Amino acid sequence: MNLYLPASIVEASGARRATVGFTENLAGLHIGKVALITGGSAGIGGAVARLLALGGAKVMMAARRESELQAVRARIVGELEDIGYSQAESRVGILPGVDVGKLHTLKPAVQATIAAFGRIDYLINNAGVSGAEDMVVDMDLTAWTATLDANLVSNYVLMHEVLPLMKKQGSGYVLNVSSYFGGEKYLAVAYPNRSDYAVSKSGQRAMVENMARFLGPEVQINAIAPGPVEGDRIKGTDDRPGLFDRRGRLILENKRLNSVHAAVVKAMRRGLGVEGLLSRLAANDAASLAMDADAPDELRKMALAVQKERSDDCHWGSYLMDGDIAERLIGRLRLGGCFLGLPEWQTRVGTGWLASVPPADKPYVPPRSVQEEAAKVRNGVLSLLHLGKMPTETEVALATVYFLADRAVSGETFMPSGGLSLERSITERELFGSTKRERLDMMRGRTVWLIGEHLVEYLAEAARQLVTDCQVGRVVMLCRSAEGCSALRIALRDLPPDLLHFAVVGDDLEGGIDAALSQHGYPTTIVSTPFVPLPDRLFPTAAAPDDVALSPAEFRQLVQDNLTHQFRVARKASLIDGTQLVLVSPDVPVGSDKSGASFALANFIKTTMHAFTATLAVENERLVHDVPVNQINLTRRARGEEPRNAVEHQEEVKRFGRAVLLAGAPLPDAEDSRYRSRIYRGMAITV
Amino acid sequence: MNLYLPASIVEASGARRATVGFTENLAGLHIGKVALITGGSAGIGGAVARLLALGGAKVMMAARRESELQAVRARIVGELEDIGYSQAESRVGILPGVDVGKLHTLKPAVQATIAAFGRIDYLINNAGVSGAEDMVVDMDLTAWTATLDANLVSNYVLMHEVLPLMKKQGSGYVLNVSSYFGGEKYLAVAYPNRSDYAVSKSGQRAMVENMARFLGPEVQINAIAPGPVEGDRIKGTDDRPGLFDRRGRLILENKRLNSVHAAVVKAMRRGLGVEGLLSRLAANDAASLAMDADAPDELRKMALAVQKERSDDCHWGSYLMDGDIAERLIGRLRLGGCFLGLPEWQTRVGTGWLASVPPADKPYVPPRSVQEEAAKVRNGVLSLLHLGKMPTETEVALATVYFLADRAVSGETFMPSGGLSLERSITERELFGSTKRERLDMMRGRTVWLIGEHLVEYLAEAARQLVTDCQVGRVVMLCRSAEGCSALRIALRDLPPDLLHFAVVGDDLEGGIDAALSQHGYPTTIVSTPFVPLPDRLFPTAAAPDDVALSPAEFRQLVQDNLTHQFRVARKASLIDGTQLVLVSPDVPVGSDKSGASFALANFIKTTMHAFTATLAVENERLVHDVPVNQINLTRRARGEEPRNAVEHQEEVKRFGRAVLLAGAPLPDAEDSRYRSRIYRGMAITV
Repeated sequence: MNLYLPASIVEASGARRATVGFTENLAGLHIGKVALITGGSAGIGGAVARLLALGGAKVMMAARRESELQAVRARIVGELEDIGYSQAESRVGILPGVDVGKLHTLKPAVQATIAAFGRIDYLINNAGVSGAEDMVVDMDLTAWTATLDANLVSNYVLMHEVLPLMKKQGSGYVLNVSSYFGGEKYLAVAYPNRSDYAVSKSGQRAMVENMARFLGPEVQINAIAPGPVEGDRIKGTDDRPGLFDRRGRLILENKRLNSVHAAVVKAMRRGLGVEGLLSRLAANDAASLAMDADAPDELRKMALAVQKERSDDCHWGSYLMDGDIAERLIGRLRLGGCFLGLPEWQTRVGTGWLASVPPADKPYVPPRSVQEEAAKVRNGVLSLLHLGKMPTETEVALATVYFLADRAVSGETFMPSGGLSLERSITERELFGSTKRERLDMMRGRTVWLIGEHLVEYLAEAARQLVTDCQVGRVVMLCRSAEGCSALRIALRDLPPDLLHFAVVGDDLEGGIDAALSQHGYPTTIVSTPFVPLPDRLFPTAAAPDDVALSPAEFRQLVQDNLTHQFRVARKASLIDGTQLVLVSPDVPVGSDKSGASFALANFIKTTMHAFTATLAVENERLVHDVPVNQINLTRRARGEEPRNAVEHQEEVKRFGRAVLLAGAPLPDAEDSRYRSRIYRGMAITV
Repeated sequence: MNLYLPASIVEASGARRATVGFTENLAGLHIGKVALITGGSAGIGGAVARLLALGGAKVMMAARRESELQAVRARIVGELEDIGYSQAESRVGILPGVDVGKLHTLKPAVQATIAAFGRIDYLINNAGVSGAEDMVVDMDLTAWTATLDANLVSNYVLMHEVLPLMKKQGSGYVLNVSSYFGGEKYLAVAYPNRSDYAVSKSGQRAMVENMARFLGPEVQINAIAPGPVEGDRIKGTDDRPGLFDRRGRLILENKRLNSVHAAVVKAMRRGLGVEGLLSRLAANDAASLAMDADAPDELRKMALAVQKERSDDCHWGSYLMDGDIAERLIGRLRLGGCFLGLPEWQTRVGTGWLASVPPADKPYVPPRSVQEEAAKVRNGVLSLLHLGKMPTETEVALATVYFLADRAVSGETFMPSGGLSLERSITERELFGSTKRERLDMMRGRTVWLIGEHLVEYLAEAARQLVTDCQVGRVVMLCRSAEGCSALRIALRDLPPDLLHFAVVGDDLEGGIDAALSQHGYPTTIVSTPFVPLPDRLFPTAAAPDDVALSPAEFRQLVQDNLTHQFRVARKASLIDGTQLVLVSPDVPVGSDKSGASFALANFIKTTMHAFTATLAVENERLVHDVPVNQINLTRRARGEEPRNAVEHQEEVKRFGRAVLLAGAPLPDAEDSRYRSRIYRGMAITV
């Protein structure tokens, strides 16, 4: 058996520069282990699978396409034979048809791995999707859910299956492959157009940080967060342009969409009707709109700016929009409630309203500009890395494989390219001060919406402070059920009833928001809280046997009730003029948290939400509505810092009310000072 | 050559539990490398030295005692010979007489390593001292400085020597061995009686985080932060009791000291003279003081409580103090200004004032209680670790040696026992709200001290807001020089001159504070800022050649000007009744930061200071004065978030003033709510 060692160790061990690579040192590092890797057919997953196999592990690669899996397997088996492994064929298996986006395909993958290899030592949650690559306000609920299912819920599904096995084995290791977009402990990353991805990646990290202690001493869980890595994802493949190119195009398209959208909204602020404005745009002709003295000023100026970008190799300077941009424009106006009372527009899908779309003879977006933007993105990304260069997939995989050999750490995220060094960041902080009087005074007589149902005490306190300290004119409560409304009504008996309005929205959050818009007009503040409490269950333990553990379906529901819920509110709220948005993380009621599971889940949600809040905050600065978003956390980082009795709980409730004023009162104008805008937006306050 | 592989790889690679240890996989991992390790004779350092040598590196161990170094070397050489290394003798060197506390011994150690091995690939800053193990108010300035020199400044001294060599070599790696006490990124740890240690360890981490980019792409710098590790440090040696035993004793001694001290201070608050009170204590007899109807109530009650702890195996329940406690009591009263006007007490050293000290026939502290406290500490520490057990020195060293093999990360801290999970923590947050009126009103007519000189604009703004918004009665400015006073006087021309008082303190901060106490009485707030600006220099670069780099002496001065300065102020301020203490981190003036060095240094100091602020905050809660301490940071985490022009700078200055009010106004009573006290103390606000 050839152990693949350098020809002459004695020579190599002299006091010269080391010439030995890493691969040689893998021999035996993972002997006897069995790894199940999702998405093992390419990228980092493929490289990890290869190195684990070289290190002696038996490897099962689960992915969608059989042909790619076959090819990778053949390469690895060949290498194993070269080294001298006996029965190399039997050391590497593949499972085609496994798609992390299709949750029902996951349990069979675990069963097949056990059938083939008898055990699972490493579960490597590597497969994932890059997400919708859209701004929150343009993102489809289906796309959002698909990203969270594939990148986050799938991890839980697999863990849930594998954990009992690992416990029986007496050891095991779960590794979630997260990303720089997932932030790092105490820090969320704000990168526009990636909110679904960031939330899913942040969730993978938060899962590790908060659930580690529920896996028992036998099972280790960690995350790895690769930064940008040289490889197909960045370079692109035949099917798909590379990451930077996609992003360059997206930046340009978004700029155009934002400017058309801004022109329409600004004209509407002067009282012009949305139908008339859209009919002006329908011709889709920058030149004629720019010359049209009758056209509203906002549209004319926008068209003039478009026309200046005219060039021969594309339609960018002549057509205001392509079909995609036109559809998104309509989508935004619809979501923002601009079509309420205009049923024809409210239900319109597609670009039928446009008189012309750019023909296919030339590209719509200027190719050179795409390349320029792509280069800017690349340089920006590189400047975040200490060494000024991206590691290769193999380098990241090598670091991962060494990391996997180290059994001392659990609950941590390993960043093989070094930690984050970001221009824009969010961290959690604690409520310390109170709100300036001049900000509170701006709420006098205005309408505030409180969305929620189960946090009765907190919502009631917020309402009370809003009415008493800010003299708001109207508090609209959007509850899920009639029972929720009643409970709130009782809790608020002490307030003048004519100031309070209640509405039941059921599961139709969007419809409820539209109805509130029609009935009460634009709110100054929207506070969004979850409708349901957290479960106090997680993985099975001695105290909580199998049948009371949190099932995959329940975990998925938890994600929907807390993360998707906030996405749905935020997507609409971000399109409402003059609103401040406050998102609230789930609570852990005093004394309810017997196993610590709800505390862990609350911190999981809270940390994951930071990614959403931070991303939405920078996205919203690019929109004409400029809605600031901040987060209030009801759960502290350490269990020992949580309120421990009724008195401290009452203090927390009061502090929540103060935090609502702090984050919900109109904020300093972002355009006034970039410095201030960096401070007042996308923050999380723990009360 | 025997590569130390398992007897039968084929068998071991079957689908069974892995039986191969880690050591076998070290073969060749560090071939060709040369490591210089400080403190390599024992503990983690010794284990790392051994494993690096097994992995093929040549190792130089530098420590104080020759005999221990010889013994370790002999063991390692023997192992190398067993494995089959040729010329094992020449692969391991020792450098006795190297003491990180004696900075002049370090440069020769580098020179000797080069002379022996021709290069240095790994500089492992492992040696350190455990520090004074005292509360801040009891800690000697010499002890503080010694800890910072040995654990922190020594790292810079060695890096400064080694860096040019590594750059010439084209590669190199600096590893600082920090500690859990050093916190982690964005988080400081508060553990009483370890402020000097925590600051030095936090500094090692902050150094790595902030200086990595100045080492160039060739040289990597990281830290490792072991948590509690099974080994001599914990278990103790013949010379010295183990860590938990020391700590158990310290907790008991401190409780006694705090209760005697509290009794004296409470009686003084009623107007009783300190001399009379001390003469009551001089008999040092709990029984008679408890029975003495003439004694002040506070002393009598304290003596009664002492007497209740009487037991046959110690003097704990009969003598109020031992010599050590008595000395500390006098030290606290002196530092707190209780002896101003009593020159005899002011200069008294030792326990001559006591009529009797406990005889040596029995221990003073009850041995069983020490063991009980030690067990509590041990359990508390274990509960912080995910796996519920401490790793061994070899396990931590193994993780370190793998980590050293991975070249992709720079600027990070690796935590082989997992990240922190702490009850009490501090993070940085940003100024968001303003101060409640009722807190500001409590400052009306009171005296505030502003200590500083170079931050004229900031100090002036704080004074202005204190006078205008809080109607304080008096602002006392303690400057280093007469020029500093003049500059401040000019900046404050618009304020009523009779409210402002200026004093020049030179280098005698303590004397200046005593003088201010005598002249102006107790302040409600003390704001402490550094006296001098940061240098804008760090390691030599192409832009900044060797001769303008920051020398080791300058680095040491920087530590003194910013960290020791705050320690000196805080030590006295924490003993002043009714005071709030605000510590301010250094600024980076807009446009001054050409190389980024001052930004890096500002973040280095700021992060390191968090450890001090957090620790002092919990210590102060145990003292009768209960002085809250908070920190204001003038430097943001990301350079792009710093003010970029005069307008934004002015905003920052205004925000600083608001932050002074927020942190400096009297705080909610800690005894009133532990929940609130966790929130309002030991925080850092970035403006």
